[in-house]
Amino acid sequence: MNDERRARLERFRQERERQNARILSADHLGIKRFFNLDTSAYHDGALDARTKELLGLVASLVLRCDDCVDYHLIQCVALGLSEEELIEALNVGLIVGGSIVIPHLRHAFDTMDVLLAERAAGSGDPSPGAG
Amino acid sequence: MNDERRARLERFRQERERQNARILSADHLGIKRFFNLDTSAYHDGALDARTKELLGLVASLVLRCDDCVDYHLIQCVALGLSEEELIEALNVGLIVGGSIVIPHLRHAFDTMDVLLAERAAGSGDPSPGAG
Amino acid sequence: MNDERRARLERFRQERERQNARILSADHLGIKRFFNLDTSAYHDGALDARTKELLGLVASLVLRCDDCVDYHLIQCVALGLSEEELIEALNVGLIVGGSIVIPHLRHAFDTMDVLLAERAAGSGDPSPGAG
Amino acid sequence: MNDERRARLERFRQERERQNARILSADHLGIKRFFNLDTSAYHDGALDARTKELLGLVASLVLRCDDCVDYHLIQCVALGLSEEELIEALNVGLIVGGSIVIPHLRHAFDTMDVLLAERAAGSGDPSPGAG
Amino acid sequence: MNDERRARLERFRQERERQNARILSADHLGIKRFFNLDTSAYHDGALDARTKELLGLVASLVLRCDDCVDYHLIQCVALGLSEEELIEALNVGLIVGGSIVIPHLRHAFDTMDVLLAERAAGSGDPSPGAG
Amino acid sequence: MNDERRARLERFRQERERQNARILSADHLGIKRFFNLDTSAYHDGALDARTKELLGLVASLVLRCDDCVDYHLIQCVALGLSEEELIEALNVGLIVGGSIVIPHLRHAFDTMDVLLAERAAGSGDPSPGAG
Repeated sequence: MNDERRARLERFRQERERQNARILSADHLGIKRFFNLDTSAYHDGALDARTKELLGLVASLVLRCDDCVDYHLIQCVALGLSEEELIEALNVGLIVGGSIVIPHLRHAFDTMDVLLAERAAGSGDPSPGAG
Repeated sequence: MNDERRARLERFRQERERQNARILSADHLGIKRFFNLDTSAYHDGALDARTKELLGLVASLVLRCDDCVDYHLIQCVALGLSEEELIEALNVGLIVGGSIVIPHLRHAFDTMDVLLAERAAGSGDPSPGAG
Repeated sequence: MNDERRARLERFRQERERQNARILSADHLGIKRFFNLDTSAYHDGALDARTKELLGLVASLVLRCDDCVDYHLIQCVALGLSEEELIEALNVGLIVGGSIVIPHLRHAFDTMDVLLAERAAGSGDPSPGAG
Repeated sequence: MNDERRARLERFRQERERQNARILSADHLGIKRFFNLDTSAYHDGALDARTKELLGLVASLVLRCDDCVDYHLIQCVALGLSEEELIEALNVGLIVGGSIVIPHLRHAFDTMDVLLAERAAGSGDPSPGAG
Repeated sequence: MNDERRARLERFRQERERQNARILSADHLGIKRFFNLDTSAYHDGALDARTKELLGLVASLVLRCDDCVDYHLIQCVALGLSEEELIEALNVGLIVGGSIVIPHLRHAFDTMDVLLAERAAGSGDPSPGAG
Repeated sequence: MNDERRARLERFRQERERQNARILSADHLGIKRFFNLDTSAYHDGALDARTKELLGLVASLVLRCDDCVDYHLIQCVALGLSEEELIEALNVGLIVGGSIVIPHLRHAFDTMDVLLAERAAGSGDPSPGAG
């Protein structure tokens, strides 16, 4: 079962990369520029990247987007955030968004467990940007 | 016009206090406990209160709730966050939530300007908790 | 202040009636039929009108629409639901929808207080249908 | 195909139980208390549990959460609500939420059919609480 | 009352212009670029500006943002769309989004009536871009 | 992998047809009438069907419903819209809805690629109506 969750996350990474490449191949200026803005929004600035990835994580949770939650969890774990910090952020999302968020909280814990195990084992690089 | 925005924020504070007191006067156990959970979610813990208030701010912005944005801006400014930090958080909310967020971004800048002016003038205490 | 809330609700009733009449004057078949479907959805059937208006109330609260909350509260109070029953329904909406719902809960309590006072005083007829 | 839908629902029950246990194992006070509030919100009170589960069902439908719809359908069927009553509640959700709800209505009918067949065959216990 | 609606729309135009200028004065690169992308998205291209403004109008209606609806109605009327065309687009938004959209439909008809009267009288220029 | 996406779309078509038939078999007047209204909303009128299907597509994208996006893409491709036109419409949805829309944009490009390949090969009829 744990293998199933690892396989789900691996498939997400591969599909996301394939699909983003497909979208960018359309060479639509607006879409390309938006993808760049999206990546830049999480770079170190007045707030550091760790804080901004937590912002992206909680925004994704309250908007109830599993793929976006997975993406920001990947970034958060790569930036060194601890399980305790992630759970506190997820709790903020739960309180803001209510019980309708719970299925996505379940999904988030599954993904977090896979990522923290990967990090403990020394694998799990951050993904290239965009959504 | 600036007076108008200051008056709007002052009215929000007073109405929010009156209405929360009315709700709690109903003495409904579930509602009271939820209000307590809501307050606790932003206390210092594995993440500090500043980070958590930023999480609340961005969650409120992407869910497009002006009153919630105002409440978290009040807390953020009371906790010492700078204009630059707030704008970077608002930008994350804009990118996640898109142009539909812009009217709420306009509202947020108005509120932020009032609050930062209040802070510079030495007024503007944090509000007691709950949404 | 209580006068202010009574005036707000009275204005809502008048504007809603004026605006619905304007919309229907356009004589668009799809819109007219949708308005009819909307009215019929809350009539007694396998579930009674009281239960259905509660469903409309909670749906409106979690979708965070103040006007829709006001409309269904008007119907609920006209159908004889008690303050305790309404608060329990609002609590379900709060738990499902989270703290982002709180500003609308504040609005709902204000409207409920006006309507219950009207009912105790013997006024406050149900509105004709449609959203 | 009917087997496929039964298997989907069975998997939902098992995964939900496993994942909720995982979340609660984190022993986060805010999350645990929220889960308790969520369970309590649907207990008999000023409104009975049947009405409250219908409220949860329609709130879940208009917020377009398949897992939440499935959970509340499980509870509704265990509490003895009939197909006619469930369909009337789903219709309220469809009218409030519009055609964007239709894919979730399709999902809900599939789940309802499995649950009503289970009930007719004498199986299908209610699930323990939380989202 | 008609004067009231004309005054509301005029205030929206002025406030929107003042607030957008304030936001851009912060000179945040991400925000400025997003505002540019937002403006460009509605320029003539593979689809003409009229079609794209209708897309923006319906997207705004189903996301239930009155200010965004007003903005796109201003553009649509300036681009020559007729009352019949606008109502058909609004009907699509109503069907997709359901009765929760109705309060925003009421707002939209009020705005549309003011704008069509302005156009018939020979006033009412399109606004400069961004949300 | 391309086969996988074709199979996904084929399964969507079959399941949608089976499930819509099941819903209509319940013979609930409100639901049946809503399905009819939904179908009619996209017929030629003051706006042509092509424009209206684009409206449905963008509304579905900003509301982040993959099944609805697939349905309207099927109709758009059957009505002869080009890849360039579809991408411009999708870009409007991306800008309005922000990065939270990106996972659904990825899904939409996959579906669009299958449908355009089907059209080039001379297959791919429009689906019968309703959501």
